[in-house]
Amino acid sequence: MTTNFYHDPAVDAVLISPRQMEIRLRLPSQDTAVRLLYWNKYKLDQYGIQSQPMVMWAESEDYKYYRTVLTGMESRIRYLQYKFEFESGGERQWLHSDGVKHTEETKGGFSLSYAGDRDAIDPPDWIGSRVWYQIFPERFSNGNKDNDPEGTEPWGSVPTRDNYMGGDLQGIIDRLDYLDSLGINALYLNPIFSATSNHKYDTIDYFAIDPQFGTADDLRQLVNKCHERDIKVILDLVINHCGYYHPYFQNVIQQGEQSEYKDWFYINQYPVVRSEEGYDSVGYYQWMPKLRTSNPAVQQYIFDIVSFWQKEAGIDGWRIDVADEVEISFLRELKSVVKRLNPNAIIIAEIWDDAKRLMLSGAVDSVMNYELRTLLFDFILDRSITLRQFHARLVHFTHRYSLAELGQMFNLLGSHDTERIITRCGGNEEDLLLLLAVQFMLPGNPTVYYGDEIGMTGENDPYCRAAMPWERLTIEHPLFKQWQFWISRKKSDSALQNGGIELQYMEESECYLIRRANESQSISLLINFSSSEVQLESIHNELGIRESTCIYRSSELGAAAASIHPRQFHVYQTTI
Amino acid sequence: MTTNFYHDPAVDAVLISPRQMEIRLRLPSQDTAVRLLYWNKYKLDQYGIQSQPMVMWAESEDYKYYRTVLTGMESRIRYLQYKFEFESGGERQWLHSDGVKHTEETKGGFSLSYAGDRDAIDPPDWIGSRVWYQIFPERFSNGNKDNDPEGTEPWGSVPTRDNYMGGDLQGIIDRLDYLDSLGINALYLNPIFSATSNHKYDTIDYFAIDPQFGTADDLRQLVNKCHERDIKVILDLVINHCGYYHPYFQNVIQQGEQSEYKDWFYINQYPVVRSEEGYDSVGYYQWMPKLRTSNPAVQQYIFDIVSFWQKEAGIDGWRIDVADEVEISFLRELKSVVKRLNPNAIIIAEIWDDAKRLMLSGAVDSVMNYELRTLLFDFILDRSITLRQFHARLVHFTHRYSLAELGQMFNLLGSHDTERIITRCGGNEEDLLLLLAVQFMLPGNPTVYYGDEIGMTGENDPYCRAAMPWERLTIEHPLFKQWQFWISRKKSDSALQNGGIELQYMEESECYLIRRANESQSISLLINFSSSEVQLESIHNELGIRESTCIYRSSELGAAAASIHPRQFHVYQTTI
Repeated sequence: MTTNFYHDPAVDAVLISPRQMEIRLRLPSQDTAVRLLYWNKYKLDQYGIQSQPMVMWAESEDYKYYRTVLTGMESRIRYLQYKFEFESGGERQWLHSDGVKHTEETKGGFSLSYAGDRDAIDPPDWIGSRVWYQIFPERFSNGNKDNDPEGTEPWGSVPTRDNYMGGDLQGIIDRLDYLDSLGINALYLNPIFSATSNHKYDTIDYFAIDPQFGTADDLRQLVNKCHERDIKVILDLVINHCGYYHPYFQNVIQQGEQSEYKDWFYINQYPVVRSEEGYDSVGYYQWMPKLRTSNPAVQQYIFDIVSFWQKEAGIDGWRIDVADEVEISFLRELKSVVKRLNPNAIIIAEIWDDAKRLMLSGAVDSVMNYELRTLLFDFILDRSITLRQFHARLVHFTHRYSLAELGQMFNLLGSHDTERIITRCGGNEEDLLLLLAVQFMLPGNPTVYYGDEIGMTGENDPYCRAAMPWERLTIEHPLFKQWQFWISRKKSDSALQNGGIELQYMEESECYLIRRANESQSISLLINFSSSEVQLESIHNELGIRESTCIYRSSELGAAAASIHPRQFHVYQTTI
Repeated sequence: MTTNFYHDPAVDAVLISPRQMEIRLRLPSQDTAVRLLYWNKYKLDQYGIQSQPMVMWAESEDYKYYRTVLTGMESRIRYLQYKFEFESGGERQWLHSDGVKHTEETKGGFSLSYAGDRDAIDPPDWIGSRVWYQIFPERFSNGNKDNDPEGTEPWGSVPTRDNYMGGDLQGIIDRLDYLDSLGINALYLNPIFSATSNHKYDTIDYFAIDPQFGTADDLRQLVNKCHERDIKVILDLVINHCGYYHPYFQNVIQQGEQSEYKDWFYINQYPVVRSEEGYDSVGYYQWMPKLRTSNPAVQQYIFDIVSFWQKEAGIDGWRIDVADEVEISFLRELKSVVKRLNPNAIIIAEIWDDAKRLMLSGAVDSVMNYELRTLLFDFILDRSITLRQFHARLVHFTHRYSLAELGQMFNLLGSHDTERIITRCGGNEEDLLLLLAVQFMLPGNPTVYYGDEIGMTGENDPYCRAAMPWERLTIEHPLFKQWQFWISRKKSDSALQNGGIELQYMEESECYLIRRANESQSISLLINFSSSEVQLESIHNELGIRESTCIYRSSELGAAAASIHPRQFHVYQTTI
């Protein structure tokens, strides 16, 4: 091992809480047996060096992956220096910031900047057991016919980009028993502030609920009733851009350079022309002009919006639309405003690719985990990569974050911006059940896009935004039962909430193991990705699993459970 | 190449200015010939894929290192997706975020979050040509006897931790001609606000110049006179802690839990006892209690300090004392206050170890580059590592930052907190000249600690804080001439200001090359680190250097310049 590229203290050491620091390491796969040796830089003489083992949680072709969490006094964590002890070719060696040493010393130890209270990840205290349910309000349920817009089409009409079916906040309130029966305990609503479209991403008044959806009072009522059932509620915050008909943008259109709002946007020429050259907009769609968040007036306006609704309705956080196109500096400032109002609020960023840049910048708590979704689909649905490649990518992804960060990620299979999951599965329910199992076993908060729990189908927008078929709906639907099962496990099983993770690729049998475990519980998902039936005895022995601990089989074929069929999986649970 | 650990978009892609993005890559050393392929994620169909070469600037045992800077329209930079094309075993391959592909595609390209104006590094427009001069005000020059404290000892007395010799701001003003003759063009002053010690790190009034040093008027005059000479001035900002006798801390001592300032500090017990258990302090030194920067009142207090002095005296920035123990979240907020007042101000953090965490967090512009100093000393002075190890570490360090970040680092050989450089060199001037050459050749702003330019000696504090010997001082001192030479090169040679960097370890001859080059100029430093004389002809040929371009030889031995003696160096300059 000639380089020190195996641990970057700027990236691989994360303050989880004021008294917890997670440290990650990878090693070349021939090295092994790792301990973290650490000391307080001011107190080395007094207290000396302490140590604790690193836990290997995965191994790939090239590397072994380790984690550990240091806990203790703030000063112990914050004036931390450390190094790693490992064995290479039978020799003890130490990885320092300035390279590998063959003798024991403290010079060149990794050293961390002191992290203040506010520098910690500090997830909301309620996040561990949550399962999100995403609602596209116009299409979930119509609870109040009086606020239906003119031209509202019958519930269940073919969805188009422009039509309305009358969904509203009262509708959601009316369906809380249903949501309770599914078991979800967190709601994410697509935008509900005044706008001109059915999706409401083109805001015209951030301080009013869209009249088609109801009133601030309805929102307050919804949040209160949800809170009574221990359901959290977050709203969609669309601040990368506003609507073309937002009065401030209209003011610029009308008054041009004289407008007091001209620096609220990115205007490229006057008079303002509705064209790509005229002004910047989201994805070059001119009806949603981009807001200039480097303008202090815009910043204050947005701070006022979040303050208003957090105080007015007591919501539990925000999903930031197109967060990957908003100034990171501004997102950080926004986060500190949101957290000052409610330290337990969550901020979830929309991002479709690698989220590390946003997460590392301290700008948001969580992201819509499209990256993980892509990876799962590449392997499980599209089979465009091998199991070995899948493992390498899943391990790589998991290694990039602390468990605290992974634990609050918004893990989704679909949304209002994708085809429906069962459609993406080509109707194959077995594939969906496999995805479900993997989704619930991995760290993070699983998400149900409204209607997916009853197998709603549909290609991407507008077809993934159909009306929820309440008339035909039954909670006896087999998919619903599956979702219900996993949601109840997420809520009851501490290992799924805060357990460590272990990922194992069994090359010979082409099986795959995802294990979550804490001090009191261990849950293992074993999947057969080979094309033939696999006998379980030797695998059980290798993994230390007892057959009798099996709590779930995806198929009752091979009911003796001594074997597992291709693309089927078993779940085992051990209480420790 | 089976993993994608060779480029991390969260770390290795840096927005330098709103229209410049630097992208870094390392490759296994057997791979080669790299191009960056990039596209606007919204405009792939319209504009297709563009490409430009990556520049290899170093090679180590295991890796090749590449950089490139993308320039262009904001949107081209900000909606950027990209991949790397390279050759491996004669085959063309592409590195994507999801691994290496053997066919051309765009799926899985690296994708960057949009970076807003304020997310850019954006170095101060004046930084490139600067050489800092650090002054410990109590010991530089006594320009006003009237403000000497009681018991002031004669100038040139043996320095102790407690004694005073009368240095002040008027003294600095009086010596500007001297500083001009040396050529430096930026001043960093150790603390000058009211305090009770000779070093003034125990502030008692942040809004007043210590009366022993002068008045706010003196500071204004100093800054104005410096600006007339194009010398920038920054002050020491000590906000990790204040002095024991700061009135707010005294208030807590006296009023205990009733004090309105109790949450300004980290008090562990009441009544407040002056002990390690009583309250947190810097390095456990109880006379400097730690300030609680997560308290909004403390934040505002510090914002008021920087606003006051930036407006009052027009200073050009701040050096943040013990920045690596200040809450990063607060440093970020501080930076935005400082930059709002003056976008061209610089913020330099004190940090003794790896600075990446601070730099990556966007909390500061620059750091005191003790990390580089340690590396140079390990090899050049202590010879505790081999040239190969030195090269690997220097390349590793350089790879961790964009050239824009490296270019504004405060590169120092010594300070008020270390032994004097000539003392560290054991009196060996040849070693010092070698360090000087390397320091001025590497990206960043070299620093002169007052008196080092005339060979002042002294172990660490208090002996490195002796009075500047003006009586015996001559600018004909050979060291002075050397510093003068390098400072003038830094100010005149654009390659040293903004040139790219190339680092080359010549294994056979044990020579080392540091080259800086831009479109108009190339400057090369060639050092013989072997223990025998090296003939230059073949090396010149290998490096494409013509003997006639030599502008500096560290020794006139071997004046024919066909060879280079051990630990000697040549500098070559080519105008392109």
